[in-house]
Amino acid sequence: MQIITTLEALQQERKQLAKEHKSVGYVATMGFLHEGHQALMKRSKAENDITVLSIFVNPLQFGEGEDFETYPRDAERDQLIAEQEGVDIVFMPEAAAMYPDDRTIKLQVTDRVDVLCGKSRPGHFDGVVTVLSKLFHLIQPDHAYFGLKDAQQVAVVQALVHDLNFPLEVVPVPTVREADGLAKSSRNVYLSEQERQAAPAIYRALQQAKQSIQGGEKDASRIVSAVKEFINSETNGRIDYVEILSYPALQPVRKIEARIIIAAAVYFDKARLIDNLVLEADGSIMDRF
Amino acid sequence: MQIITTLEALQQERKQLAKEHKSVGYVATMGFLHEGHQALMKRSKAENDITVLSIFVNPLQFGEGEDFETYPRDAERDQLIAEQEGVDIVFMPEAAAMYPDDRTIKLQVTDRVDVLCGKSRPGHFDGVVTVLSKLFHLIQPDHAYFGLKDAQQVAVVQALVHDLNFPLEVVPVPTVREADGLAKSSRNVYLSEQERQAAPAIYRALQQAKQSIQGGEKDASRIVSAVKEFINSETNGRIDYVEILSYPALQPVRKIEARIIIAAAVYFDKARLIDNLVLEADGSIMDRF
Repeated sequence: MQIITTLEALQQERKQLAKEHKSVGYVATMGFLHEGHQALMKRSKAENDITVLSIFVNPLQFGEGEDFETYPRDAERDQLIAEQEGVDIVFMPEAAAMYPDDRTIKLQVTDRVDVLCGKSRPGHFDGVVTVLSKLFHLIQPDHAYFGLKDAQQVAVVQALVHDLNFPLEVVPVPTVREADGLAKSSRNVYLSEQERQAAPAIYRALQQAKQSIQGGEKDASRIVSAVKEFINSETNGRIDYVEILSYPALQPVRKIEARIIIAAAVYFDKARLIDNLVLEADGSIMDRF
Repeated sequence: MQIITTLEALQQERKQLAKEHKSVGYVATMGFLHEGHQALMKRSKAENDITVLSIFVNPLQFGEGEDFETYPRDAERDQLIAEQEGVDIVFMPEAAAMYPDDRTIKLQVTDRVDVLCGKSRPGHFDGVVTVLSKLFHLIQPDHAYFGLKDAQQVAVVQALVHDLNFPLEVVPVPTVREADGLAKSSRNVYLSEQERQAAPAIYRALQQAKQSIQGGEKDASRIVSAVKEFINSETNGRIDYVEILSYPALQPVRKIEARIIIAAAVYFDKARLIDNLVLEADGSIMDRF
């Protein structure tokens, strides 16, 4: 496994891979890898000659007062996990190299951002599409793997690739969960023991919503209320949002008549957790994106 | 020579070229080709296995009241010229395919735009970098050739490639001129006979500025005044701007102490012409970008 830290070295390596006709799969991460990331790496390994993992805590996608400084980092452990998963190249650039001071081109996401996580994170997705545009150009993947835990991110990245005709395919990968249903997240380490025990209630609430849709419930606001009630009764977390939106357009929905996302974000003491289900109109899990 | 009109056909062809390890040179145009474009094609032919020419009058880079509708078009003649120059692929997409209605990603140029042509064309360079991002992704050139007649565009495109790490090299190509010095332009056809006779005064004025810098003049505003005076006395055109700026940063300059651009834009009855020189501090022509 190669560890590459400079843009120039990566560009040179990428040219070599092109000469060798290698297909490239790419997993973009902010590090502190968990089984969710590992699922992405496994999928990339299975579908490409070469798998590139980037580890970069992207300052541009954190807002004022967010957890950029304290975002968990453990490069050594990450490299071990990447090695175990058979990753070929780990790219770990410096922020100063990714964002020199003389930048004059801005990317902006004009839709899908005033909902879900975007609502409380102004500019977040602008930072996401900016760093991904750069990383896509540096890595030039054939396939880029993204976890559906952040389904809004998947929708925005698919829009980025579609709108600007990036020559790559975005591959959404189902959320990996703990045995008790809690979605894997780098931020789970910040939960207290009590919070950790209660947190799976988020997923249970989403599953109850799914069941109620399967049972014929079509009214989005009634479903949202039930999910909120359940989370409030089962955890001490403070709900940031519970929303039902069309997917992938992420437009408000009153009646469930087509593909939707039901998503929740809950603040605990030191961590904000998110989870979602993307469902067809009949309540079945969407499995083709 | 292949004529390709759909994005899908181009993407497929581009994959084939990658399989064959062909290097790709790219010339982006809005058509109505002239010798300036031909110089770009010749350069691309000399330096790459395959030359791709795009012809696309990009609606996004025209403002309200600009000449999008009346911009000269002659696809048949363009194809003849491209064929003569040995172009391998002409890409002529439809606007509806390039810009479907559901676009949600915006590119914005935050600097270098309030000067020169950008000043009177708000949003123009946002449209330029958007279409070029798409075309770069579709064509994936190794080298992209741009004429220095629009030196502001060259500087902005270099910033785009630099900021977003596009895997390609921007190659600026010197302005091609008529025998009397007038810079070649698709818009020259709109000049009346009298205007056509007077228009070379723009270039002569810039050359006089060069000579005065070579003679030791360092004061930018004095040089600008002399250029304006000359153009006003020699033509009936209305000066849009004459500016001296640092190059490629395009910042205001009082004393000429480093690389600069001296640029002029002049309105004639049915055409607005631009021209420029990029000069070292001693007044010599910049030949390395």
